Amino acid sequence: MTYLNTDAGETRIMTQFAQRISRLSPSPIREILQVIDQPGMISFAGGLPASDSFPSIEVSSLNHHQLQYGATEGDLNIRQFIAGDLAKRGLQTDPDHVLVLSGSQQGIDLVAKLMIEQGTRVAVESPTYLAALQVFTLFGAAYEPFTPQTISALGAQAPTALTYTVPTFQNPTGHCYSTEQRQALADYCDSSGSVLFEDDPYRELVYNDCDSTPVCSHVKEANWIYQSSFSKTLAPGLRLGYLVCSPDLFPTLSWLKQAADLHSNRLSQHIVLSQLESDSAVDRLVALRKSYREKRDAFDIALNQQLFDVAQWQTPAGGLFFWLSLNSDKAIDTRELLVKALQRDVAFMPGEPFFSDGRAASNCIRLNFSHAQGDEVNRGLLVLAELLDERL
Amino acid sequence: MTYLNTDAGETRIMTQFAQRISRLSPSPIREILQVIDQPGMISFAGGLPASDSFPSIEVSSLNHHQLQYGATEGDLNIRQFIAGDLAKRGLQTDPDHVLVLSGSQQGIDLVAKLMIEQGTRVAVESPTYLAALQVFTLFGAAYEPFTPQTISALGAQAPTALTYTVPTFQNPTGHCYSTEQRQALADYCDSSGSVLFEDDPYRELVYNDCDSTPVCSHVKEANWIYQSSFSKTLAPGLRLGYLVCSPDLFPTLSWLKQAADLHSNRLSQHIVLSQLESDSAVDRLVALRKSYREKRDAFDIALNQQLFDVAQWQTPAGGLFFWLSLNSDKAIDTRELLVKALQRDVAFMPGEPFFSDGRAASNCIRLNFSHAQGDEVNRGLLVLAELLDERL
Repeated sequence: MTYLNTDAGETRIMTQFAQRISRLSPSPIREILQVIDQPGMISFAGGLPASDSFPSIEVSSLNHHQLQYGATEGDLNIRQFIAGDLAKRGLQTDPDHVLVLSGSQQGIDLVAKLMIEQGTRVAVESPTYLAALQVFTLFGAAYEPFTPQTISALGAQAPTALTYTVPTFQNPTGHCYSTEQRQALADYCDSSGSVLFEDDPYRELVYNDCDSTPVCSHVKEANWIYQSSFSKTLAPGLRLGYLVCSPDLFPTLSWLKQAADLHSNRLSQHIVLSQLESDSAVDRLVALRKSYREKRDAFDIALNQQLFDVAQWQTPAGGLFFWLSLNSDKAIDTRELLVKALQRDVAFMPGEPFFSDGRAASNCIRLNFSHAQGDEVNRGLLVLAELLDERL
Repeated sequence: MTYLNTDAGETRIMTQFAQRISRLSPSPIREILQVIDQPGMISFAGGLPASDSFPSIEVSSLNHHQLQYGATEGDLNIRQFIAGDLAKRGLQTDPDHVLVLSGSQQGIDLVAKLMIEQGTRVAVESPTYLAALQVFTLFGAAYEPFTPQTISALGAQAPTALTYTVPTFQNPTGHCYSTEQRQALADYCDSSGSVLFEDDPYRELVYNDCDSTPVCSHVKEANWIYQSSFSKTLAPGLRLGYLVCSPDLFPTLSWLKQAADLHSNRLSQHIVLSQLESDSAVDRLVALRKSYREKRDAFDIALNQQLFDVAQWQTPAGGLFFWLSLNSDKAIDTRELLVKALQRDVAFMPGEPFFSDGRAASNCIRLNFSHAQGDEVNRGLLVLAELLDERL
């Protein structure tokens, strides 16, 4: 037993956490989820869909059966729908290998439990989704960073056990892998035996042509996991996603899901399936893309007006983000910039947490264009421009 | 890279899972959740509440704000309600230390991540909730089993880092700790520094007087975590529970929650709070207890008729289960009995998975009395009686 002497002069028992906790750090997402509800806050942070894009949810036909415990894998009817939908996208699977998730963040947790322990080599894009890094790091991952341009160099030292990718409208860069890049990544996994973990939440949010065929459909020999989410096209508050995987992996992932939360919310499964099957589902998606494309274009124009002299960016062909590289020779820790921006009621995502090498200054920021409304965009970007002018 | 030669003569890549996966076993819960929906199945398995006890759920007042991403810790209004409710039960806390969970199984996962690695000593009741053992084992726990009667011997070898308990209508035994047993367990944690993890899903399902004051309220120095669930009193399909803990543990548990699924379902938070605050909430609970008390009594009578010569049991003062010890000098693996029972459309929970020592034969079975309806109880118990007569 270890005692801790506190500032207040008390003597208290000090609890010994598991070693992995020393690798755990709070994600900026958490802090930002806490502040976005504050009145007057302009949020370019998070992957927040536009609130006015949510469908109208009415629950009247829910029966008692649907409030009971359900199967760990998910309800059969939604699993069938998902498998059918994936087949149209070029990924052949069957309902038996679909696992409904409580949001796709849960898939990251399950795959990390399946694959990662202290020192496990994991290939990740640089930069990549910060909450994936958070989970992989918790479990002890050793990273091999790559970019879509450096896939051919992957595994030169030693093969990676796992390869995590967001190939379509990547988070944070917005990059959409070319057909050749998709094939190259699948080839790496096939030749090395690295398990491919494809995270695909943004595929529906497409504004310009782009090959969005799942990389997993190119894989011939390696094991693979493909996941997506209903948070971006329906509503995040419903917390529903799914994964599908090669048959060898399914039983174990399913046991891990059962150990994590028994099964996913049945009300959400019911609501999401109703929405997917509704007559208006296609029209809704077309309207959503149109609305987001307009938002992206307006944001691009506003960026060109406000930040043309302090940053560079590529206009993303889909997804929810602009990724800005700041024009500076100096190292800029954009987390410090965030503190100042929050004081002026503007939130964005600093670049540092997206890099697996733990760099102290990234000179990059991620801006979400889907959530802020009307003149908030210009007002918020003006604040950022002023802060960057001071700093650069 | 390792290749695997399959029966079909193919050569495939063999994936290297994390070592913890070798400790993972499927829980009978999962198999049983899959079969309970089959027509004609009589289920004494699971902790399934009676489907006719669920409230009528209508969702009409849901606003777009509630479909958006939310705070990891949960919505403020439900956290405030929970803290107020716990204070009435004798556990002083505040909304800032309430973490809303996607069902209380998630709390087990988070606490295991926080505390358990290979060889971490964990005190658990023998028998105890099998899905807690499943998670603790996955993370590498070394068990020190105890019973409410052997608390004074706890930690004699070495202190345990964590003490897991279900003190009120314990799963599976139905035991309700006496006031002295509650104090003794709190004293052990205070003197050893073992973190107390109290799991309390059944406290509302009380049919005879019993001290249900949280053990955590007796703790003076040790860190503690208390969790409960809305699955037993409202509806499991909503997947909502919560934990509250000593202030030292809250930030880390909150980060772990964020890494696991970002936040819990906001629709469920809205529905559950509406139910908790409704004028009929107290009456509903009174009616639920009355209904379950009648079911328990009827089940007890049926047990006395059908199984009096093959098993022994204590009538539980609350909760959802009868725990039967079979009258036999022979070692009986009740998992084999389950296979035969399922063939005759009767499900129950075998005893073996509730023991942390991995015994091959427990001579015990757990029967849920709340789910089966009408004459299903007699028909199901008759099948068990016939199978046990054959076996004993």
